[in-house]
Order: sequence, then structure tokens, then C-alpha cells
Amino acid sequence: MNSIKAQARELDQADPLAHKKSEFYLPEGVIYLDGNSLGALPHSARVRAKDVVDAQWGDGLITSWNQHGWIDLPHRVGSKLGKLLGAADGQLVCCDSISVNLFKLLSAALKMRPERHVIATTAENFPTDIYIAEGLIEQLGGKHELRLLEEQNLCEALTDDIAVLMITQVNFRTGLKQDMEAVTRLAHEKGILVIWDLAHSAGAFPVRLDASEADFAVGCTYKYLNGGPGAPAFVYVASRHQAEYIQPLSGWMGHAEPFAFSPHYRPAQGIRQNLSGTPGVIGMSILDAALEVFEDVPLTALREKSLALMRFFENCLEAHDIAGYLTPCYPEEQHRGSQLAFRHPDAYAICQAWIADGVIGDFRAPDILRIGFAPLYLSYADIEQAVSRLAAILNEQRYQDPVFQQKLHVT
Amino acid sequence: MNSIKAQARELDQADPLAHKKSEFYLPEGVIYLDGNSLGALPHSARVRAKDVVDAQWGDGLITSWNQHGWIDLPHRVGSKLGKLLGAADGQLVCCDSISVNLFKLLSAALKMRPERHVIATTAENFPTDIYIAEGLIEQLGGKHELRLLEEQNLCEALTDDIAVLMITQVNFRTGLKQDMEAVTRLAHEKGILVIWDLAHSAGAFPVRLDASEADFAVGCTYKYLNGGPGAPAFVYVASRHQAEYIQPLSGWMGHAEPFAFSPHYRPAQGIRQNLSGTPGVIGMSILDAALEVFEDVPLTALREKSLALMRFFENCLEAHDIAGYLTPCYPEEQHRGSQLAFRHPDAYAICQAWIADGVIGDFRAPDILRIGFAPLYLSYADIEQAVSRLAAILNEQRYQDPVFQQKLHVT
Repeated sequence: MNSIKAQARELDQADPLAHKKSEFYLPEGVIYLDGNSLGALPHSARVRAKDVVDAQWGDGLITSWNQHGWIDLPHRVGSKLGKLLGAADGQLVCCDSISVNLFKLLSAALKMRPERHVIATTAENFPTDIYIAEGLIEQLGGKHELRLLEEQNLCEALTDDIAVLMITQVNFRTGLKQDMEAVTRLAHEKGILVIWDLAHSAGAFPVRLDASEADFAVGCTYKYLNGGPGAPAFVYVASRHQAEYIQPLSGWMGHAEPFAFSPHYRPAQGIRQNLSGTPGVIGMSILDAALEVFEDVPLTALREKSLALMRFFENCLEAHDIAGYLTPCYPEEQHRGSQLAFRHPDAYAICQAWIADGVIGDFRAPDILRIGFAPLYLSYADIEQAVSRLAAILNEQRYQDPVFQQKLHVT
Repeated sequence: MNSIKAQARELDQADPLAHKKSEFYLPEGVIYLDGNSLGALPHSARVRAKDVVDAQWGDGLITSWNQHGWIDLPHRVGSKLGKLLGAADGQLVCCDSISVNLFKLLSAALKMRPERHVIATTAENFPTDIYIAEGLIEQLGGKHELRLLEEQNLCEALTDDIAVLMITQVNFRTGLKQDMEAVTRLAHEKGILVIWDLAHSAGAFPVRLDASEADFAVGCTYKYLNGGPGAPAFVYVASRHQAEYIQPLSGWMGHAEPFAFSPHYRPAQGIRQNLSGTPGVIGMSILDAALEVFEDVPLTALREKSLALMRFFENCLEAHDIAGYLTPCYPEEQHRGSQLAFRHPDAYAICQAWIADGVIGDFRAPDILRIGFAPLYLSYADIEQAVSRLAAILNEQRYQDPVFQQKLHVT
């Protein structure tokens, strides 16, 4: 036990990202292992929130659309996101939610493959992705098929009747990470367009959209990107597709000349066509500031620390002698996102007991304890302390207390 | 001149809503006549912005979805909006943008009138409404027609081949206000469903959605409702339509059981089906607090003050002897929203010169000076002062200075 604490100390001392923790506000006494649901609050975001409300809105009023560049905010944020996601400028823009953006991309992709009638995704995908495909198919009159592929046999299942493959890079339950480059290449060999959902990728490890020859992508910004609850999402359309791309949510912000108020829609050239209504300036400004914490972070170092934190978590389970209580359901290291998942029949109650003891993890139905590793604000000492408290809960069977049964909703 | 100033003083002294001005932050020396583009900052919104970021996000982290009721926020805000819009609970929810919500409503309405193929709107409608209809028609394969009706002959043009009439209650240029009850009744006589866009109505005067037997409505919350730049929009679906209603942006938040993560979409009963992705919690919380300023405001008093402010503005133009410079293009009093519009060949430059002199009005292409009257934070003295400064600009032809030519983008 003492030796594992000493190990944590040594690892923290050698951690090249250790200084980033001070850029976040974390509540006293809380160890936060749910940054993959909602990232912690960066100080830069807190400062900007005050500025955008008090100074930009309060003092600047309508003139801030120009004076504080609100009108270009979706592009400025898109450009910052591009640096984290390996996308050259002009291919990413910040807008709407993942769900709404998927609707745009799926609609556009089907138009680009008019002779094909299958949308493929994995059965294990995050439900909203599947639901949006269902909604679109219903709207288009039912002439398309939604095909659910098995994650394990993904590559074999890519056949040339599929118009578009919509796939989340990291499984939200198990943390299994797909090889973006390999899957995209195989899909392209069959003439399939690929939409990547980067919800659990963005800000968790390096993503190489352009290098992987990705067609389309969406993602949210409130997880590893720390943009705040319900922060706006993003959408990526590779340059080579933009001339042909047409999406149906043709709102005025995506018009070639939004302020000409012309009576017919003419899409903007390039990625801006994806803007629909007026952007949510306050939330997007806070996100813009939150992204500043990444400016001096080498993404390879981020990935290394993420993997090291997960390895250390496993070591702590051994050191505290509780590995036997939990059934790991996550992949080998090279196939991991930045989370671990364990099955336990009482996973829900364990999660609640852990929260009561100051460690916020997450539960995913039916029986998964999900642990997120946000490398920018977690220390190795945090991990050791979290496992130590988990050991007490498991050894004393504290989770059997009925108080830990009441259901929470978390995203 | 002195007598008009004295009149302003008397009107302010007798104003039953005069005390509301102190609930807003307004920058020193600025008279704000653009609350119909972006409402001013309520102190309640400023306080909540700090609370939702620092305490709810920062301290509460993921647990705030329950502890601070983020999960029900779209409904709580919807319910507050319902009180301002004459809608019983369960018919309004806060989400997305007007553009995205119109897409939902138009899609659903067309499904409810499968034998009809015309979407009708006014040629004078706000462009995003028209664009969204165009995008939907394109997506559905072009078998529908978008028919642009003339505002003046609206009622005669309602024929029984129209599936849905989409109409903005107050014209964004002229301020012409449609009679919701009469138009809805005439449309229903022809079997037409009606979607009302309340962008320039909500918070400007009493709206009676239920009493008018409205079918559907959308609106934004950053104008007279003071929700902040890009604050989320709302959508109304009358109870009697909810069982039949199905919209295509079927994201997880509109699922009957969002946290069951089931692999097929099953729409929630009632208005909640309109939620798609994760709500923008920060912006929506700020809006929630901003709506508190309406709690003690009788909407009839709001309307009376709005009309009185506009009458007083006209009186001030006469008193300052500048009425002849400007061509009114707004309707008679009973058909007005809460704005006035004047044509002038140099409207743009006049607007810029006025801004330079501390009075923020608005310009709408090609030649309209648009003046918004937000009754909660404008005094009669403000109006007199604004017109006095306008008189100087017009009399001295100050607007001819080239510095006032550079184009701004404003919403």
C-alpha cells in the first residue's frame, strides 16, 4: 500500500502535464473520474463566461456581433478544434448538437450515393446516432435500410451496397477505440462514405482526420474538451466533398450572404453551409476559452499520460487487492480510448457509494462501472486515492446500503 | 422642445412599469432601441450566469444534471414561456434554434397532410423561415411546392391545396402584426395547419396561442425576452396534435426513455419529443433567469407601454420638426408589433451616426431604419433624448460623413 502511494508520488513528479491541473477549478475533496461525461471547469472558461455576459452582452449589446467577433465565432472555434483533430482550416465548424449535425451529414451523404440505400452503423453505437438515422429514414419514406453491424466483425461487414457508415470511434461503454485510418480505407475500397462520431475522442488523444482521409465527422465538446454542460458540437466535412455537399437544415447563417436577406437560399461555399440558426454565443464563447488549455499540450503527451493513468489504475486495483471483485470489459491498451469499464452486478450502487465518498465515476446500464481518465486534471495520487476508497466500499460491501439504489440520470 | 421634455417626465412618472428598468444593466450613456435584435442584460441573468458556471458546473460537475435540475430545464423554461404566450403546460419546450425547430414542425405538418403538397408562407417572411422550407422540399425530393403569398392578400390566398402555412406574426422589417386568431381560423376553414413564428412577438405583447387555436409555433428568446446572444429557441405543439406528431430530428433527449440506451427510437409522449441532442445548459439557464423579470409584469400593461412609447416617438419627431425627413413604413397602431420602421435613402449611415452618438437603433436592407421599443427598460425620457440626437444628425446632415458607411452585420 505504501509502495503504491510512493509510486503515485514518483509518477506525479515526472509528469510533464502535471502543471495543467492548476488551470482547472476542481471542488475541494472531490476526485473526478467522469470527465468523459462532463469535463471540469477551466479557469479560462470561468473568466470568459463573465466577460461574454457582463462586458460583451451587457456593455456591447448588439454591436458585439462585430466588435467581439460573435459572427465568426463558429469558425474560430472550428479552427481551434481542427488543430486538435488533425484537420486543416475550413473543414470544421462549431454548431448545434451531435444529433442535429448527424442529421445534416447523413442527409448529405445519402445524396452523394443515390444508387445505394443502406446506412450502416454498429449495434453498439451511442443510441442518439442510431435514433437520428432512424428518424431520417422514416422521413425519407422508408426506402433506406439501417443496418446494425457487429463491432467485432466490422471490417468483414463492409459491403458495396452501403452508402454511408456512421461509427463512433470510441465505444461509450467499453472504451474500444476503432482504427480510423484502417476502417476508413476499407470503407473507401467499397465506395462507402464514413461519418466518424468523435464524442469520446476529441481532447482525449490525437485524432488525424485529414491523414485518415475521413469524409465526415461530428463530436461534442463537453467531455474531454471541457466546454461546459451542453456546449455546442462540431461538424467536419472534408474539403474534397464540400462542392458536392448539400445539407437540408438550410438556415440563414449557412447562406452565402446571410445579411442580404435574399428570398432564396443559396448555400455558402465551404464548411459554413452547416451553420443553420443563430449560434449560441455564450456557450460557444465559453468553449472557445476552454480550448485555450490545450494550446501548450502536445497531444502525444496527452495520450501517453492517459494510457499511463489507466495502467496505474490497474496496478492500484492489484495493490489494494480488489481486482477480483470487478470484471474488466475493456480492450488491450493500444485499442483503448481514455476510459476503463468494469462489470459488477451492483455497479450502480458501487458508483453511488463511491460518489458519496468523494469519487465521481459513472454507471452505464445495465452493469457497467465506467471510469474516465482526463489527463489534464487527474494526478496519479488521485487515482491511488480513488482506488483506495473503492477498496473500502467493496471490502465492507458498503454498496449494499439501500440509500445507494436511487437512480440518477447522467449523460 | 421644453414641453416635449416635460411630457416625457410626466409620462415616466405615471408609468406603472418604470421600476422594471432597474432590473437591467444598461451601459452608461447608451439609449438602446435595438431590443428587438438583442435584448439588454437583466441582472438576474448576470447572477445566474455566474452561478451556473461557478457553482453548478464547477462544484456540482456531472451531478448537477440532477441536483440542479438540468435535465428538466427545457421544460421549466418551456413552462415559463407558456405563461407569456398563452399556452397551457406541456405544449412548449425550449431547444435548438428557430431554424432547426421550423424544420421539425414543417416535416411533421407535411406528414399530417399527406394528400397536400404546398407549403405557404409570405414573401415578406424572415429569410431563414423560407430557406428552411426550401431545404426540406429539396430533401423530400421536390414533390412539394413553396408558395410565397403576399402579406396584404394573405387571407384570400389561403386555398385548400395548402398543407401548412408558416407565418411570422410580426414582419421583421415593417413591424406589421398579423391577427393570430383570425388567420388561424381562416386557415383551419381550408384544412391548413399553421406554424407561427413568434420571434418579434414573444415578450413584446400578449400572445394567445391556445385561445387562437394555434397548431404550432416557434420563436427565439434573445429579443424581447432578453435571454442573451443566441439564446435557445422554443417550439410549441398544441396538445391535440401531439399524438399524431412525429418529427425527424429524433435525438436521444426526445426518446421515451433516454437513459435506457435502447437500440431503437421510441418518441416521448408529448412535447418532449422535440428535444433532440443534449441541451445547451449554460445558455438555457441564463434564459431561465432572464424570464424572471416578467414575473410581475401584466402583459396588457406591457402592450400599453409599448404602444405609448411608439406614439411618443412620433410626437417627438413632430416636436423636433424632423418628421418630414423620414418616410414611415409601418402600420396603424392596432396592427403594430413593438417597432417602427422608416425609409430613408441614407438609412444605413443615419443608423451608424446615431450609434456614434450613443443611440443604438438598427438598419435593415435596403433602406430601413428600424427602431425597437422594449417596454421594460425604455423610458419616455430615453425616447425624447434619442429623437433629439436624431434631429441633430438629420439637420446637420452628419450622416454624410464617409466614416458611417462601413457595413456592420447585425441580427
